[in-house]
Formats: sequence, structure tokens, C-alpha cells
Amino acid sequence: MEFAYDATTNDLIERLTSFMDEFIYPAEATFWEQLEAAPDVWSPPPVIEGLKVEAKKRGLWNLFHPGAEGAGLTNLQYAPLCEIMGRSLHLAPTATNCAAPDTGNMEVLSMFGTDEQKKQWLEPLLEGEIRSAFAMTEPAVASSDATNIETSIVRDGDEYVINGRKWFISGAMNPNAKIMIVMGKTDPNASRHRQQSQILVPRDTPGIEIKRGMRVFGYDDRDHGGHAEVIFTDVRVPVTNLIAGEGEGFAIAQARLGPGRIHHCMRLIGIAERSLELMVARANDRVAFGKPLSEQGVVRDWIAESRVKIEQIRLLTLKAAWLMDTVGNKGAHTEIQAIKIAAPRTVEWIVDKAIQVHGGGGLSQDFPIAEWFAQVRTLRFADGPDEVHKNALARHELRKAGTRD
Amino acid sequence: MEFAYDATTNDLIERLTSFMDEFIYPAEATFWEQLEAAPDVWSPPPVIEGLKVEAKKRGLWNLFHPGAEGAGLTNLQYAPLCEIMGRSLHLAPTATNCAAPDTGNMEVLSMFGTDEQKKQWLEPLLEGEIRSAFAMTEPAVASSDATNIETSIVRDGDEYVINGRKWFISGAMNPNAKIMIVMGKTDPNASRHRQQSQILVPRDTPGIEIKRGMRVFGYDDRDHGGHAEVIFTDVRVPVTNLIAGEGEGFAIAQARLGPGRIHHCMRLIGIAERSLELMVARANDRVAFGKPLSEQGVVRDWIAESRVKIEQIRLLTLKAAWLMDTVGNKGAHTEIQAIKIAAPRTVEWIVDKAIQVHGGGGLSQDFPIAEWFAQVRTLRFADGPDEVHKNALARHELRKAGTRD
Amino acid sequence: MEFAYDATTNDLIERLTSFMDEFIYPAEATFWEQLEAAPDVWSPPPVIEGLKVEAKKRGLWNLFHPGAEGAGLTNLQYAPLCEIMGRSLHLAPTATNCAAPDTGNMEVLSMFGTDEQKKQWLEPLLEGEIRSAFAMTEPAVASSDATNIETSIVRDGDEYVINGRKWFISGAMNPNAKIMIVMGKTDPNASRHRQQSQILVPRDTPGIEIKRGMRVFGYDDRDHGGHAEVIFTDVRVPVTNLIAGEGEGFAIAQARLGPGRIHHCMRLIGIAERSLELMVARANDRVAFGKPLSEQGVVRDWIAESRVKIEQIRLLTLKAAWLMDTVGNKGAHTEIQAIKIAAPRTVEWIVDKAIQVHGGGGLSQDFPIAEWFAQVRTLRFADGPDEVHKNALARHELRKAGTRD
Amino acid sequence: MEFAYDATTNDLIERLTSFMDEFIYPAEATFWEQLEAAPDVWSPPPVIEGLKVEAKKRGLWNLFHPGAEGAGLTNLQYAPLCEIMGRSLHLAPTATNCAAPDTGNMEVLSMFGTDEQKKQWLEPLLEGEIRSAFAMTEPAVASSDATNIETSIVRDGDEYVINGRKWFISGAMNPNAKIMIVMGKTDPNASRHRQQSQILVPRDTPGIEIKRGMRVFGYDDRDHGGHAEVIFTDVRVPVTNLIAGEGEGFAIAQARLGPGRIHHCMRLIGIAERSLELMVARANDRVAFGKPLSEQGVVRDWIAESRVKIEQIRLLTLKAAWLMDTVGNKGAHTEIQAIKIAAPRTVEWIVDKAIQVHGGGGLSQDFPIAEWFAQVRTLRFADGPDEVHKNALARHELRKAGTRD
Repeated sequence: MEFAYDATTNDLIERLTSFMDEFIYPAEATFWEQLEAAPDVWSPPPVIEGLKVEAKKRGLWNLFHPGAEGAGLTNLQYAPLCEIMGRSLHLAPTATNCAAPDTGNMEVLSMFGTDEQKKQWLEPLLEGEIRSAFAMTEPAVASSDATNIETSIVRDGDEYVINGRKWFISGAMNPNAKIMIVMGKTDPNASRHRQQSQILVPRDTPGIEIKRGMRVFGYDDRDHGGHAEVIFTDVRVPVTNLIAGEGEGFAIAQARLGPGRIHHCMRLIGIAERSLELMVARANDRVAFGKPLSEQGVVRDWIAESRVKIEQIRLLTLKAAWLMDTVGNKGAHTEIQAIKIAAPRTVEWIVDKAIQVHGGGGLSQDFPIAEWFAQVRTLRFADGPDEVHKNALARHELRKAGTRD
Repeated sequence: MEFAYDATTNDLIERLTSFMDEFIYPAEATFWEQLEAAPDVWSPPPVIEGLKVEAKKRGLWNLFHPGAEGAGLTNLQYAPLCEIMGRSLHLAPTATNCAAPDTGNMEVLSMFGTDEQKKQWLEPLLEGEIRSAFAMTEPAVASSDATNIETSIVRDGDEYVINGRKWFISGAMNPNAKIMIVMGKTDPNASRHRQQSQILVPRDTPGIEIKRGMRVFGYDDRDHGGHAEVIFTDVRVPVTNLIAGEGEGFAIAQARLGPGRIHHCMRLIGIAERSLELMVARANDRVAFGKPLSEQGVVRDWIAESRVKIEQIRLLTLKAAWLMDTVGNKGAHTEIQAIKIAAPRTVEWIVDKAIQVHGGGGLSQDFPIAEWFAQVRTLRFADGPDEVHKNALARHELRKAGTRD
Repeated sequence: MEFAYDATTNDLIERLTSFMDEFIYPAEATFWEQLEAAPDVWSPPPVIEGLKVEAKKRGLWNLFHPGAEGAGLTNLQYAPLCEIMGRSLHLAPTATNCAAPDTGNMEVLSMFGTDEQKKQWLEPLLEGEIRSAFAMTEPAVASSDATNIETSIVRDGDEYVINGRKWFISGAMNPNAKIMIVMGKTDPNASRHRQQSQILVPRDTPGIEIKRGMRVFGYDDRDHGGHAEVIFTDVRVPVTNLIAGEGEGFAIAQARLGPGRIHHCMRLIGIAERSLELMVARANDRVAFGKPLSEQGVVRDWIAESRVKIEQIRLLTLKAAWLMDTVGNKGAHTEIQAIKIAAPRTVEWIVDKAIQVHGGGGLSQDFPIAEWFAQVRTLRFADGPDEVHKNALARHELRKAGTRD
Repeated sequence: MEFAYDATTNDLIERLTSFMDEFIYPAEATFWEQLEAAPDVWSPPPVIEGLKVEAKKRGLWNLFHPGAEGAGLTNLQYAPLCEIMGRSLHLAPTATNCAAPDTGNMEVLSMFGTDEQKKQWLEPLLEGEIRSAFAMTEPAVASSDATNIETSIVRDGDEYVINGRKWFISGAMNPNAKIMIVMGKTDPNASRHRQQSQILVPRDTPGIEIKRGMRVFGYDDRDHGGHAEVIFTDVRVPVTNLIAGEGEGFAIAQARLGPGRIHHCMRLIGIAERSLELMVARANDRVAFGKPLSEQGVVRDWIAESRVKIEQIRLLTLKAAWLMDTVGNKGAHTEIQAIKIAAPRTVEWIVDKAIQVHGGGGLSQDFPIAEWFAQVRTLRFADGPDEVHKNALARHELRKAGTRD
């Protein structure tokens, strides 16, 4: 285990931090004002475009991308940058072209796309010209079990015909999300993990109905393109739109999972650090019953606990990143499961305490904390509920014991 | 301790349950549709008016009111009715004219109002013709400590002049909230609990700026008139608008607290019961990894825990109600504190599990659960954060020990 | 629900409290000294005998027994007395002849015993002349599932022959535990709940080996006769020793369960109250870092939480008792499960905090707290682990929902 | 952060693991039998001596000692070895001469002892010929605040005269604990951290009364020399017995704290791993209600949680060790506090679940789990209760924020 940040990482940390200090944090107020002022626009407020230009100029662009098309960083190198971006969740990832689901989609296209697919979709995504969506979750089934997926992708001559209903398709409300990667079944009779395929479907293809934006605790997340319910009725795309091949859907999904979880967890840690900063600042400032909150024992307890929890979850996430880099997805299995289980609930606890220290205001639009809570809470389901992951991790422990004897 | 429901209570439970089954639950879908369709109206959707007519016709009206002007029920008699109403939080309390903050305001006017004040404000409130607001919380100070309040109420001849800034003034966005009861300081130099007064301020008085609706998570609660930030600048009302007398503000606030907390906690229990019903229904229906959720051990654990927790918190709340009825506010002190501490977090736990069993949908507008979470979470601050109440309760225990020796 | 203590109860509470104040608490120091001085005696220290005489004289004897042979109290009447006894767990129940497992054994003999069985065993037990044991748990199987029990009871002419191995047979190390009720299988081929029988086996019957005392967290509980491992090898008793009849074992076990759980839970509440008293006293006395512990926010939080938790669990236990009295075992099913789940863990939490406030001493023999912890912890398994009860309770909730639709 | 185990560490891990497998684990049964058979001997059972010989032969001796007199390992190198030893807590540390409090005492003597002190006491300790004790905690005061200590050390000519009362002096019941390091006040009027001194006091010095062994839960830990209450009445030792100098007591205590906490926490992790192994083994073996415990959802949840928790706390402890090695005690301050807070409670949780999976047996002498619980629980106070550490950590966070602005 060597988690030391190397020279490349330290350099990027410094440059990213400067960018945050000089551009991102100062832009937050403008961001919220523009968002309030344009209640029906399902895309980032204009202030973001300027930040993108600046980030690109500074070489803080596509940092997430491990290959030649991006910054070429390892997971361990990218992880601390991702934490820093998580501190300004609405602005920093988008400004640096490191926002989900584009990141996963770009990785998939890099790894599995044909030259034509790359040219048409990956290039404008890498440039930050368009956005994208990943259509997997379905309302009718427990999508944590990928084999439950019911959307059909049926070949008909030179085309595939897609029928199904998806929801929580993040980003898809944004008209600039030009392309969707859709997961569905090409062969319901194949073996369990060979039934699914992934296919590129332009958002303006006939037969697609972007029905509505799902809300999360009342938030519609429209600056991120929301979370759409999308209905596919006899949607036809050329067979060349298939990614990798029929039956490859499950394997492609697995490939994006590992890095995606590390990104999510590191961003959560950024949220946790900023929540703790707000908690500490408020505790230092606010007086109740004759003394500052910072002298109330219970508030101090929360502050200490937050620090103890953050340190542990960050180390675990870094270890998962380091394992991904050194022994790959499979060798990092336990740790990848573990951070998925531990990070959301840990950060939820911290954010909850930050809310509590802020009183009513903590739940309102005057602080970012309540919205962080919503984001964090969501991750207790994303990629399957915690309980599914715990079950898998336990199975692994139980089997390990069996073989040890 | 005699918590048995008497004949009156049982009769009302039965009639209220019928009303819920026949009118309230069936109206819920319409309610949400109307609310979605009218995004800028800060008042209940039209379907509510019909329900009010029906409730009144059935004698299910002003049930909260312990005096001759209402149903004349004790706290213990009203408590189970309040739980039932909590099951449809947006519709039932409003339909029966039992919604906060009108309930507390009506009680205050009944107890402390002059005949003229009653005629002008209490009567239309009792009829359900107008709504009202209670302006206490201020952004600049920890309002859990009432002595922190900074709004000034200064006598100037036959008028009082009010200056200050309030927020989270529930209901005040609704133009039909014709009247506000405002808490402020008439004498900053009086003893700690004699500085405050409460005064009637019509919402359309010059100098009042209803600045904006505070959101809770992403919800604006516009069907309940939202939670306004309100600025009072040289607002003048006649001296006859004062309630009870100068310096009585703290005592009036205390008087409404006890019943208010019981109402809140019983409604929470209604939410908990309905959350558990949804959890159980979902667990019975949903299949994941080859078996229904109801056969997953962890889900069963949540269901059992929910039942265990609900039973305990309901009994404690009923005991608090019974003590209020038999030995009064002061004798019920520990229990009133205890339910304020225990009920919100207990029900929050249950609602959280109901969300988890529902997956992503549980956080969305397709189920009422996420919004319940927001409501319940708020109550960990309302009337002061849990920590303040725990501190007070501990002081009581520590002193009791001292005198026992 | 009417939990009011009636005149009989109030009178007994007063008399029992006087007895505690005048005799039990003052005897505690002597008790511990005698126990330390006689490390190998598996029975109560001599001081107990005098207390028994006094209790009997005062009519505080066999209070647990609901029938004519005892005090004739309902569960609701006995419950608060049981809480008071729990405050001095080593002395009070034994002094008043209300100690397990004699209580359950006496109830069983009263309900199901023949005249001869009663004369031989019930009478001396009621007099407090002998003690008894209940041999159910087996090391080899999960005894929470009674059908797992492997001890065989085979008829051979006028005798039954018993073979098996039991452990955690409380009281059986005490040579004065003259009689054991043994649970075993008379017919392994009968239907699930008709395989078991219960039979009277004198402790000195040939073939019985009292192998050793099981310890609990290092405690051997020798004043209560310990927790024996007992091996039965071809143990022969006359057929007249069978209780009720072949196949009745499960039904008899069920009959003793309900009251037994109420007794256990109420005694736990007595422990909780006394732990809270010690916690409060210590917090008032002890100074650290310049101020008494009672002014440390976290300690106050524990004190408040303890009160909140005690109030809830007591009400739930009283409700279970009241339901037992009014609608019987079956109608009280959910509540009986609920207190079994909630009381041990709740009181464990409180005892743990009392330990923490006492520092190292809290874990030592200088305070009773650590031993309470051991007692309470044990109850998270006794009659089956919490998880079994939660599972059963959840099944009930899931089915209830099914029938409601 | 570079936590990789280097070649030295990996070699020692391998050799220590072989020693555990070949000698330590097989000796455990004998150890317990010898202990049961000799109830009054306050020292390790004879089996230990052979293990010491073997360990020394294999070069697995004094591994803890960072200097030339020991194995010369860094904290990070020793940490994983310490975890392995923790797996057999009664045997492995003693067998390898790495048991507290000797370890801390040897470190202190190495760092601060005179040549003569080293010759007389350090040498036989390093050889494992004698044991030692560290007398700090006092019953009368909150010893987490070292300035509270009341034992006096008064110079009288060429001697110091010691008066005071100590308890929980681990190891001091063992007659072979030839030497004690006693903490007391030489100058009550000096500044807060210059009042204390540490002094060498042979156990057989006149005026020392080894009063009794304190128990922890019901355990007396006699194989480790118990936890003595010791009374010092006019105990006289030559002035040359003083360590380092008058007023150095606090600084000496601080110097041993950091490594001591890492050792404690790593041993706890060894306990956690072995608890998890037992939990998994039991879950795989035991059948209840028709299926193995390993298929019960709640048990799987515990197994997964245990793994998630262990991974986090191990990483945090390794980071603390690495910081100690690279930036020293002060730079590792937050992490040293954090592991002290997090490790005991984390491992307590895991051990508790291991108990629960084992049913009644889990609390008894038939498994080591209940005793592990007692050991772990103790560490929630050792070196001061968790709450003191959390308070200090919070202060640090609050100040850091202040300076950042």
C-alpha cells in the first residue's frame, strides 16, 4: 500500500486548488442566482461556460480519463482531485469536464467504441461540446440485479429496435445531452450475463419520449440535466450503434463501475470536508444559551467524530483506488464494495450534523448542505442498494473461510 | 396512567377513519395533480375546499380545539385522531381545520384574545375562511432561546411599531393567511421572560415585505402556504392588537408548546404507520435476486424494528397527553421533552428505511416518503434543536437527584 | 390501555419499597463480603436467609404467583414490583421467593402438576425451602428453535429414561436445587410442536452429572446457583414425574414464556433506573478538567437519553403486561416480542453509559454495574436471540398486511 | 502515505505467522487448562515459558522495541506484527516479550534510564526474566487528567518518600513483577505539566501493600498479573531511582503514549479479525430454523460490516504509525487521537456480533470472545475515556479553522 501522492498528483492538486479558489468558489453565488432566475432551463447556468474555458486553458480538463485522450492519470492520482472537485459539486466537475455520467460514457467509448462511434460522440464529449446520458435503471424492476432489465433491443435487418421504459436517467432532461447509451436485452435466452447489450441512441431519435424529470427530495437537479423518465417506443438505430457486440452489456457495465464508485466516494469526501468546515465555522460563530456552539460538548463530539470518520473513509477509498491500479477490478473487489457501503452513510452522518448545527437554515436554499444530503442519500441506492453490496461482500467472506480450511 | 380510548374517542376514530377512507385517500391523487399543474400558487389545491365542506358536515371540524369553540376534546382524546390525520399530512389536517399554525393561533386567541380580537380573527379562523401565521423564528439568532429574539415592538402613542426580520414563517406565503401573530420584544430591559410580547399583525399592513419562500430540502410546501422570510419595517398596528399584555409573550408561547408538540408527534406516528405500510407492501411485492424483499433478513429486521419503535413512541406520546390533561404542562415536562427528542428521530429512522425499500423511487415525487422525511427532519429543530431539549431534561434529572439525597 | 396502578399495587409498592430501604439495600455490602469470603459455595450467602424471613413476615412473598398459592396479582400489578426488585438483583428476588427459574417452575407446577407433584415439589418451593432448575438449552443445537432439542425421554415400563446434554441450566450448581424440570423429546416423529415433553427429575437421580458451571463474562453467578452444564446418562424417573402428558412440552414452555419475559424486562428496568441513579450521582460528584462531569455536554446527553429510553420501554412492558391480563398470551404476541427485542438492548445502552461515567471502577467489583451489563447482555439471547424474535415479529406484520388487502 | 510492508516486515510477518501456527495456537488449549487448574496463581501458566524459549530462538523477541536493544523496527514495521500477536492475546505478546506494560516500561528505561537503572531493570526485562508494572491510575481522581494525580513523592535526604493509592496496576499481582514505575507529584506548586515525576520502586520495598486484584467484568486476568490496587505508605527508595529528573513525569508519560496506542489498536484489530473468523465459521456451521446462519440476512450483514469496519480502522492505525515514524508524535496527534476513539468501539461492535452468533456459549469460557469483549471495553477508558480524546480532537479542528481564516 503506497498512497503517497506523487509529483504529478501534487502539482495537479495545487493547480486545481488555485482554480477552485480563484474561479470556482467565487462563481458559486452567481451560479445559484442564475439558476433561481431561470426556473425552466434544464442545463447548467451560463456561468459554467466561462469556467470550462478557464479550466481547459489551465490543463484541468478530462482529468478523470486514464487514457491518452484524457489526463492519463491512475485512479490513485485522480482520487484526490476528485475529492477537491466534490467540494463544489455543481460547478467543479462540469467545469473540468469530469462530470458523471459523461465520464463513464467517455470511458466506455474509449475502451469499446469503434472509430466511427468515437469520432461522432467521443470527440465532442471530450471537448465538452455536448453532454450524454446512460439509460439503465427501470421503474418496473429491481435494477440492482442487471438481469432484471426488461428493455428490449431487437435486431431487424440493419437496425435495432428498442422498446422499454427507463427512469432516473441523469442528464437526459438537458437538450444538449445529444447521445444516450442504453442498456437492454438483445437475447433473453442467453446465459445470465450475456443477455444484455449497450447501444448508442441519439436523444432526438423518433420514438423517444423524455417524459418528465424525477425529483430527489424535491430537487430536480436541472443544472445537471435532471433525472429523466424516458420511454422508448419502437426506437430504431443502425446496427453500427451497438457497442462492442451483442451480449457485452453486462461486461461493459462492470468496467465502468469500479472507477465510477471511486469517483463518487471521493466526491462525497469533498462534501464531507466542506460540511465539516461549515459546521466548525458555524460552531465558532453562533451563540446559544450564553456560549458559542463550539463549547457545547455534543457539538464538539460531532466535530471530532466527523474528522475520525473522514480519515477512515478516505484511506479506504485511496486503498481501493490503489488496488484498482495495481491488481485491477477483481482484486479490488472487497474494497470497492466496502467504499460503496461505507462512504455514503458516513458522509450522510456528517452532513446531517452540519445541518443540525445550522438549525432551520441548514435545510434551506441558503446553504448547500441540505442538497448535499440529497445527493449523498441517493448514493445509498445508486448501483444497487447498500444491502446488495453487503450481501455480496459477506458471501465473499464466507467463501474465503471455506477455502481456507 | 389510563390511556384507554373512551367512547367519544372511539366514535371519533371510527368517523374520522371513514372520512379518510371515503374522501381523503381518494383525493390524494387529485391533490398532487392539481399541485403539479399550478406551480406558482401558494395555497392548497382546489380539491381541499370540497373536503373541508364534507369534514364540517360530518362534525370532523376543529377537533384540536379543547374549548367550547371546538370539539372540546382532551389531549388524550385528540391524540389518536391527530395520528390518523398525520397519515395524509397534506390533506387531512387542512380539511378538518386542524392544521398548524392555525391550531396554535386559535388556541392563543381563545385563551388570551379580547372579544374584539376573537370576533375579527378567531371566528373566521374557526370557520376555515382564512389562514394565519406565527412569526417567531429569526435568521440572525438561535431562536430556540426565546430571549435571543431581536424583533422590536415599540409603543408609539396608540400604535405599536414593529421592526425585524423573521424566517420560516409557515403559511405566510399564502395570501389567505390574513393575520400573523408576531413575537418580539417590547422591553429589552425587563427580566428574561418578561421582555417578549405577541401582537396581531394583518398580513397586508404597510411595511411588511413577504420576501421569499424558504425551502426545506427542495420542497417549498406551497400547499401549506410555504415558509416565508418576512421583513417588518416600521410596521404600525393599533395597541389593541397586543395579545394579553406587554411582557406576556413568553408565557403565551409556552402555553401553545405542550399541545403543539403532542400534535406534531402524533402526526409523525401517523407518518410512521403509513411508511411501515408502504414498506411492508413493497417488501411483499418486489422481487430481487430471486426472492421477494420480504424474505430478505435485513428488510424483515427493519419491519420488526419499525413496529417496536412505533409502539414505544406512541405510548410515550399518549402518556404525555394524559399528563397534560391530568397534571398540566409543568407536571408533563419530562414527557413533553422526551417525545420532542424521541419522536422525530424515531420516525426519521422508519421513513429512511421505507425509502430504502423503495429504491430510487422512494426519493422521488412518485411516493410521499421523501417528503415525509423532509417534514420529520425539520422537527429535529422545530421549537429548538433536540440538543437543547436533552440538555434541559438532563438538568432536571441531575437536580432531582440532588433533592433526593 | 389502562396502566394506572390500583390500590393493591400502590400498597405493595409502598411496602416493598420500605423493605428495600430498610433491609435489602443495607444488606448489599454484607452480601458481597460473604460472597467474596466463600469462593466455592454455589448458593446464596447466609444473609439472604434472614431477608427471606423478614419478607415472608411482611407478606412480600411469592408476589409473582398469580394464583391462590401466591399473591394472586395480575401481570400489571406485579410488573412494578418486579422493577423494584430488579434494583437489587442478587438479593430482592431471592428474598421474596420471586427468583427465576423457580418462578416459572412454580407456575408450571401450579398449572399442570398433579396433586402429588405439587405436594412433593411445589409446596417446598412456595415455602422457599428448596430451589429448582429448568433444563432446556443444549450446547449442540440452536435452542431458540425448540424443535431442535435432542435430549431423549424414552418410556421403559413404569419409567422414563433420559439421555442428553444441557447447559446454562441456571441454579443447578446449587445443591439445594432439589428438582429439575427437563425438556426433551418423547416422540421425534410427532408433529413439530408435539414432540417435546417436560418431566420432573430430582437433582440427585443416578445418571446425572453436574459437570461444571458456565461463566458469563467471567462471572459464575454462584449466589444464584450458577449456570450448569448437566449430562443425563440413562437417568430413570417414574412415569408419574411427567408433567401434563407426552407431547405437552412445547405448550408448557409457551405458557411460562409470556410472564417470564415481563418479569425479565421489568427487572431490567429496575437495573436501568439504578444505573441512571449511579450515573447521575457520579456526574454530580466527579470533577475532570476543571468542571463536574454533570456539566459535560456528552454526559448530559447520556442522562437525558437514558430517561427518554426508560420511559418508553417501561410503558411498552406495562402494555404487554396489561394485554396478557386482558387478552392473553396470543393477543399480547407482538408486544411480548417487542419488549424482548427492545428491553435488553435499551438497558444495555444505559448500563454501558453508567460504566463509562465511572471510568475503570465501573468495570470492577467495586460497583455493581459491570455485572448488570453481563446480566443484561445475556438477555439478548435468553429465550432465543433478538434476531429470531424480530423475524417472527416481521412475519406477523407482513401477514397482517396481506389480510388487510 | 506509504503503508507498503517492506521486506523486513514481510519476512517477520511470515516468521511470526509460522510461530503462531506451529506453537501459539496449538498451546492455547493447554494454557486454558493450566489456568483453570491453578486458580490462585497470579502469573502465566507454565506453558508460556516454553513458548518464550522458542520465540527467542526464532528471533521473534522484543519486536516492539525500536532501538538497538530490541528489533529496531519502526512503528509501521511493528504494527502488522502486533496485529498478529493480538490474535492470541494471552499467549503471543508474552511469549515474544512484547506484552504491556513491560513494553512501555522498557522503552522508558531505554530512553530515560541511567546506565545503572538499565543494568538493574532493563536488562532482565529485555531477557524476559522479570515482569514490571506501571503505577499511574488512582481511584480518587479522574486520572485521564494527569494533573489530578495525588500520589506524593517527597525528597528526604538521599531518598524519596512515596505515599498514595493506585489501582488498576496491571501485572502488579504477579510476584515476578519485580519493579514498578510509579507516577506521582514531586512539586505540586510547579506549572501544570512539571509537577509529576516517575520513579522506580521495587515491588518488595517496605510500605507497599498489594491490596487486591481489581476485576474487569468477572475476569481477574491473573495470567497477566491482574490489575492490582496498591497502597504506598512511606515507601522509601534512593534518589537514584528517579527517572530522568524531577518534573519530567508528564513528558515521559507522553513519550510512551503514542506507540502504546498503536500497539493497543493493532492488537484490537487482531482480535477483530479472529472474531470475524469465529463468526464466519459459526455461521457456516450452525443451523437454525432450517438453514445455516450464514444464509440469514442479518448475520451476513454483520459479516460484511465487520469487514468494512476492520479495513478502515486498520488503515487509520497504519497511517498513525507511519506519521509517528515520519513526523513524530506531534504531527501524528490527530490520527493518534482518532484511533484511540475509533478502534475500541469498532472492535467492540464486531466482538459483540461474534458473541451473538455464538449464542450463550459466546459469553462463556468455552470461547475466547466474551473475554475479548472485556479487554476491548476496557480500552474505551484506558489513557482517558473516549470523550476526553474527542474533546481534544474537536478543539484542534476548531482552532485549525480559526487560523485558516
